[in-house]
Amino acid sequence: MSREQLAQEIIDAGRFLYGRGWSPATSSNYSTRLSADQALLTVSGKHKGQLGPDDVLATDLDGNSLEPGKKPSAETLLHTQLYRWKAEIGAVLHTHSVNATVLSRLTPGDHLVLEDYELQKAFSGVTTHQGQVLVPIFDNDQDIARLAAKVQPWLDDNPDCVGYLIRGHGLYTWGPRMSDALRQVEAFEFLFECELKVRSIANA
Amino acid sequence: MSREQLAQEIIDAGRFLYGRGWSPATSSNYSTRLSADQALLTVSGKHKGQLGPDDVLATDLDGNSLEPGKKPSAETLLHTQLYRWKAEIGAVLHTHSVNATVLSRLTPGDHLVLEDYELQKAFSGVTTHQGQVLVPIFDNDQDIARLAAKVQPWLDDNPDCVGYLIRGHGLYTWGPRMSDALRQVEAFEFLFECELKVRSIANA
Amino acid sequence: MSREQLAQEIIDAGRFLYGRGWSPATSSNYSTRLSADQALLTVSGKHKGQLGPDDVLATDLDGNSLEPGKKPSAETLLHTQLYRWKAEIGAVLHTHSVNATVLSRLTPGDHLVLEDYELQKAFSGVTTHQGQVLVPIFDNDQDIARLAAKVQPWLDDNPDCVGYLIRGHGLYTWGPRMSDALRQVEAFEFLFECELKVRSIANA
Amino acid sequence: MSREQLAQEIIDAGRFLYGRGWSPATSSNYSTRLSADQALLTVSGKHKGQLGPDDVLATDLDGNSLEPGKKPSAETLLHTQLYRWKAEIGAVLHTHSVNATVLSRLTPGDHLVLEDYELQKAFSGVTTHQGQVLVPIFDNDQDIARLAAKVQPWLDDNPDCVGYLIRGHGLYTWGPRMSDALRQVEAFEFLFECELKVRSIANA
Repeated sequence: MSREQLAQEIIDAGRFLYGRGWSPATSSNYSTRLSADQALLTVSGKHKGQLGPDDVLATDLDGNSLEPGKKPSAETLLHTQLYRWKAEIGAVLHTHSVNATVLSRLTPGDHLVLEDYELQKAFSGVTTHQGQVLVPIFDNDQDIARLAAKVQPWLDDNPDCVGYLIRGHGLYTWGPRMSDALRQVEAFEFLFECELKVRSIANA
Repeated sequence: MSREQLAQEIIDAGRFLYGRGWSPATSSNYSTRLSADQALLTVSGKHKGQLGPDDVLATDLDGNSLEPGKKPSAETLLHTQLYRWKAEIGAVLHTHSVNATVLSRLTPGDHLVLEDYELQKAFSGVTTHQGQVLVPIFDNDQDIARLAAKVQPWLDDNPDCVGYLIRGHGLYTWGPRMSDALRQVEAFEFLFECELKVRSIANA
Repeated sequence: MSREQLAQEIIDAGRFLYGRGWSPATSSNYSTRLSADQALLTVSGKHKGQLGPDDVLATDLDGNSLEPGKKPSAETLLHTQLYRWKAEIGAVLHTHSVNATVLSRLTPGDHLVLEDYELQKAFSGVTTHQGQVLVPIFDNDQDIARLAAKVQPWLDDNPDCVGYLIRGHGLYTWGPRMSDALRQVEAFEFLFECELKVRSIANA
Repeated sequence: MSREQLAQEIIDAGRFLYGRGWSPATSSNYSTRLSADQALLTVSGKHKGQLGPDDVLATDLDGNSLEPGKKPSAETLLHTQLYRWKAEIGAVLHTHSVNATVLSRLTPGDHLVLEDYELQKAFSGVTTHQGQVLVPIFDNDQDIARLAAKVQPWLDDNPDCVGYLIRGHGLYTWGPRMSDALRQVEAFEFLFECELKVRSIANA
């Protein structure tokens, strides 16, 4: 795919994710793989439902901007880290929903367990509701290099990881194509909503 | 109706059900009766808001594909079982909502009882809020033949059944026409939401 | 306004109310005053988001159909009762939302009190948040004449009444014009949602 | 920007805010700065999703209408007070959501504290989730001059204030441009929803 087409995928993803309420108030950032050693990412601080072709920029996989006039998202390193981790990853989405925010704050410890949900099968590599999907939760940190350094060992130890949460902040998930990453966002959001509803009743 | 028209009914149903959030992340499957001994079903794994005319396939009522190049939904047998059960059934919808998922997990035992809701009258054959609508809940199973074998005796014993739940998975409902099946999905979703709201407050 | 224009108001109201989820699964009915002694009402059992010009019929104010070929809504008498009650009423809306259903079931006794909400001012005749809006709740009844006979004394005793609930069933509200009735539906739905949220937290 | 363009910004904001459910039933009012000593405000009592170019009027910064034929919103003084407070404020939005209403009623005392949310960074001047955003809550009052007199000392003492709540009534927020004020409404609404969800579970 051309850069123009990849940029359009990001623009369309933003329109969808903003419309669902998962990228409010200029939050969130999205990317696609541009080549073996470059990514195409959203620039900082834009309305995610109104992205245009100029609102993306190319970076290397160390998170350095290749387009000096543009300011990359503060969280660029969390994207490029994933493209380095697995060659088959072609798209990364970071969203910022109410349910991801609340669930990550209310879940003590460093991970969430999803089990007995048929929709777990929407995640890459999952074929039954009977296993467990572990979603690590990292404490939020404005120092993204430090945060990335905490994420890396978890990725290295968990090659099947399908996404993670940053506490009070949001979700990272990914896939070979943008459509895969979007499917996983939908599945995570569905399951986060389920978990919160179960807790609001079961704890009562 | 022609196959083309029936396929369009499935496509339109998908657009509606996905838009309501009841068929996220490629979940769900839908069908219509094609003839006395054939059904038209969605193929496996498609985005339900973006179905096209090629995303359906014909099967016999044993769930065998009549179009070798296409992979039927894993749950085909749960559809064809219903067309065998009653000759007047012309459409079957399986949806996968947050509320159906959560309510089926939180309800112990093998059924849910709906009563004193005016909207029960949206179900085929119900004329008053004063009766009870029993919704059986079957435990989820990746072995669909085994699951179908558990559903069958319940259908045989309950000729007035208007729908059932699979735990942590979703709803099956049906009707003579697609519009009837859609009306019943709406009614079930409304009542599931009511039940969860009542429990979130009444249990508090 | 001509009958054609009044019918269009009902069609547009249905599209809006269905879209908000307040008239699901062919529930609800709507009317406008056609003349001093006639009303124009929705026929029975139609999809409220897809009404057409033929889906309304004229009745006298005793609830008798003036168009023999069409079946009026079962609840016609609850509409015509209101047009008889006050000459200035020009539109009546009966909606059927989750929140109206749940709140009316969870509220013991025969009325709900709304107070300290700025939005009370959206109701006809209310100028401050400091008063109380009393919303009577009548038990549901499939015998509409009997239900109407219970509503009438309440209307007679409460000339300022802006709407009422039927338990497990829904809301009736009205106004001089359709836009007034729609504004009151929005206000009631807002306040019902507030009341349920307050209860889900305050009772916890 | 011309008056025509500023009016269009208000019209578009209304369409968006009404669509999100944050300005129901003719509630809410919006404004932009017209000049150093004038504001352009919505007139009283209009449907906020259907504003037209005639539904705004110019006022001086004491809240006096400069267009005698039009009735300004009752809350005009709360807008003009803000334009007087800071020369850089170019737009003020008052919205009226369920969550703002409920949260302001359920929060005892005179303020709400938001902390540990990444989305706090959507507010002007906030660069980390680690600080606290204080949102004052003023008791509702139909006497707007008296209410404004309570708001003023708080503004004077808190030059970094990004918005405030009126109990049972809604939110006031602002920014240099309309897009900034809209971003802050989105951020507040997101955080109000988070706070209510946390409370509905954590208190259980």
